Amino acid sequence: MSKPFHVLSPEQFNRSFLEELFVLADKIRLIDKSKEGNRFLADILSHKRSMLYFTQPSSRTFLSFQTACSILGIKASEVRDTSISSEKKGESVEDSLRTFSSYVDLIIMRSPLPGLCDRIASLLNETPRPIPVINAGSGPDEHPTQSLLDLYTLSRNFAKRGGIDGKKICMVGDLRRGRTVRSLSKLLTNYQNVEIIFCSPKEFKILDDIREFLRAHPQISFSETGHFVEAISQADAVYMTRIQDEYDQSFESKIIDISKYCLTYDHLNYLKDDAVILHPMPRREELDPRVDLDPRAEYWRQERNGMWTRAALICKIFGVHEQITAY
Amino acid sequence: MSKPFHVLSPEQFNRSFLEELFVLADKIRLIDKSKEGNRFLADILSHKRSMLYFTQPSSRTFLSFQTACSILGIKASEVRDTSISSEKKGESVEDSLRTFSSYVDLIIMRSPLPGLCDRIASLLNETPRPIPVINAGSGPDEHPTQSLLDLYTLSRNFAKRGGIDGKKICMVGDLRRGRTVRSLSKLLTNYQNVEIIFCSPKEFKILDDIREFLRAHPQISFSETGHFVEAISQADAVYMTRIQDEYDQSFESKIIDISKYCLTYDHLNYLKDDAVILHPMPRREELDPRVDLDPRAEYWRQERNGMWTRAALICKIFGVHEQITAY
Amino acid sequence: MSKPFHVLSPEQFNRSFLEELFVLADKIRLIDKSKEGNRFLADILSHKRSMLYFTQPSSRTFLSFQTACSILGIKASEVRDTSISSEKKGESVEDSLRTFSSYVDLIIMRSPLPGLCDRIASLLNETPRPIPVINAGSGPDEHPTQSLLDLYTLSRNFAKRGGIDGKKICMVGDLRRGRTVRSLSKLLTNYQNVEIIFCSPKEFKILDDIREFLRAHPQISFSETGHFVEAISQADAVYMTRIQDEYDQSFESKIIDISKYCLTYDHLNYLKDDAVILHPMPRREELDPRVDLDPRAEYWRQERNGMWTRAALICKIFGVHEQITAY
Repeated sequence: MSKPFHVLSPEQFNRSFLEELFVLADKIRLIDKSKEGNRFLADILSHKRSMLYFTQPSSRTFLSFQTACSILGIKASEVRDTSISSEKKGESVEDSLRTFSSYVDLIIMRSPLPGLCDRIASLLNETPRPIPVINAGSGPDEHPTQSLLDLYTLSRNFAKRGGIDGKKICMVGDLRRGRTVRSLSKLLTNYQNVEIIFCSPKEFKILDDIREFLRAHPQISFSETGHFVEAISQADAVYMTRIQDEYDQSFESKIIDISKYCLTYDHLNYLKDDAVILHPMPRREELDPRVDLDPRAEYWRQERNGMWTRAALICKIFGVHEQITAY
Repeated sequence: MSKPFHVLSPEQFNRSFLEELFVLADKIRLIDKSKEGNRFLADILSHKRSMLYFTQPSSRTFLSFQTACSILGIKASEVRDTSISSEKKGESVEDSLRTFSSYVDLIIMRSPLPGLCDRIASLLNETPRPIPVINAGSGPDEHPTQSLLDLYTLSRNFAKRGGIDGKKICMVGDLRRGRTVRSLSKLLTNYQNVEIIFCSPKEFKILDDIREFLRAHPQISFSETGHFVEAISQADAVYMTRIQDEYDQSFESKIIDISKYCLTYDHLNYLKDDAVILHPMPRREELDPRVDLDPRAEYWRQERNGMWTRAALICKIFGVHEQITAY
Repeated sequence: MSKPFHVLSPEQFNRSFLEELFVLADKIRLIDKSKEGNRFLADILSHKRSMLYFTQPSSRTFLSFQTACSILGIKASEVRDTSISSEKKGESVEDSLRTFSSYVDLIIMRSPLPGLCDRIASLLNETPRPIPVINAGSGPDEHPTQSLLDLYTLSRNFAKRGGIDGKKICMVGDLRRGRTVRSLSKLLTNYQNVEIIFCSPKEFKILDDIREFLRAHPQISFSETGHFVEAISQADAVYMTRIQDEYDQSFESKIIDISKYCLTYDHLNYLKDDAVILHPMPRREELDPRVDLDPRAEYWRQERNGMWTRAALICKIFGVHEQITAY
């Protein structure tokens, strides 16, 4: 039996996959507008079941995947709290997930345990009934499906301006720990002449592995700065992020001044007219709610894009994308 | 875009709406009896998704709405515990609910935060994709859909006796804090010559705002008494309620003697032969389980009526009631 | 109205019921393989709703039932945490369950309260709208549906070797408290000349009620031993179980040496070539994960069998098994 299509890292995607995925997401969005289209979609994978294994707090990604499953007719079960599960009876997490895999056709997972997704995907590959695993932001390192929706949002916004190639993307905030920044940076290497401006306090600069990854891809360039206004005023897209203090052991976040890296209503004057503002959400003080009313604020649409991107990805995983395309 | 049909308060309903709603609820109940009818209903809103946001303990109302959605084919997501959601990461409740609204077509909510439903409905009205909000008993003040099902139960029971007009309704218990008493009293002003007898210990009398509301509606009259047996023996309907001590800061409930306001098996002798006994449930000592066997006990059917009333209400919200009527 | 078909104890099943059930489970498994078959099944009971009331930790049984419902098109609600329900407001568990029964057509329950399933089934029998109740491993005594899937797994494995009649089944571990051992032993009395070898430390021997039950059924024989290797080497099936220390008040489990009752990789040499290894899962140290790769390890398939057995059982409960058979 061939191995299933696991989604574990943004590095597994290439440009042609990404472009096909985004066309597919557009198509699904369009089809879903009518009741007939909605019904067509809800039949595509109605014979499949999924498990949403989310033992780390999440509502956005959880609901986005749950809705994506629902759009395609997939029946989703969930495990969110190991205190009501057999892990309480001393079961290993590997046994638990193999058990869940018995009942379903797809596992979508987020766990605080580093590397668990990869381990489970490998484990299932060795069983008589392997099923695909999607990393839904598991562990501290990667969040591949978030970066897909971020990129899809950029792609839609730049569609009439030559696409993502050649654009300046400014990423702001906790670049050291933000998984979405890490994953999106990697995905952007699939495009030509993209320029990333990393803007953060010095304590939250990107890590060496990302620098090295980007340097190994000469088609992309990047710079690092602490000057917020200067950085955002050059950007075609401003990607704001929050401090990831749920991973914060030493409370250092509390003593670092991030007030200079917050997008306020007044900053809107510095942005290009056709710039777009993204944020993976949830936000805190780094993004003023008054910005929501500005037409350049794309983050609410970006959220909704998650649903379409994930539905498209699941269609790819199960090889039913051509049915969508043919509709 | 026109504003969505929010359900926020019993004051928004008038008699013709109520009567239409109850005819619709009857029709849905009838259609659901057959497998074919059940399928017809499950297709009516199969293209819609709802969010049950219940961050305050509830099982009855939650399940009633969940079932109502299921009857109409609506796929329901749920958030019940903010500890597994992004509110844990410092997200505002407004952002959380706007996020949830991205994925669904209807929000049904109960939160301990006073006024949150109204605030969310207003907030969504200002977004490019506003969706309807139903107050499912949120906050300490109102519980509009409970009062709809209470009224529907009265309406069904009095159908062959001239309807609700002219009936005597005795409400017993914690009238000060009981949201269902407050909401039902307001709804009853849509009928002619209804007489409400409020029966409670003096510490749990209705509040002035309800008195004033009723006085402003001359078609209804009310009286207040502490004499339980006298009150229930005159009533066409006895509406029992429990002490709402989950809102009790000072433990006063413990020291007030409510034993005289409990309906025991022996009290059944005092009730009119055609009286009906209602209770919004859950009950405690104020309603003896032995009363359940009496044919005048309507509270279990009343519970089930919640399902039909809420399904009818959701049909009204989405404007599909005529499809039901035409079946 | 006739009483509903409750599933409360393994003693209610006889051989012809079991054989029919297993044929039905086989058929459902087969039908579900195709998308068309999957759709056929999902329509069988699409007009029904179930309540999964699991107030005791469980993931395997919960998901297995949830999936069984999903296969048959039944919409399942769930209550897993009484802290978000009306029991928090002082409601009796009887009232809670009667309430849940208002909204659904089937209750599947696991509760730590001894005898609750039986009590609820009796209570519902007296209401105007009685619905079936399934004991999903409620309380310390029985786990009837687990024993059905265990037996189904044996039946499938022995299908080409004359069936279960005449086989030697060795049960290992905490036989005193293991509900699955208790229930399976009872079910095995439906077969001819089965020999059970109970193998455990002396502190975990089966209780007298099981001994007496088996002695009252002369078609079955049993022996008790502490010699693990000797016991397993004779067996046609080895049924491993874990220490049930969630019921352990005195921490005695910690001081009893169970190391001699663990199946390691080396023990595989002692097993018959055509023996099968079962385990109700979750496992701990008593079953080495390296055993998983041995073709005699049946416990992962056994888990999946739970889904088919439970789906078949639900079809029997609702009397739709003939529709399956006719497909």
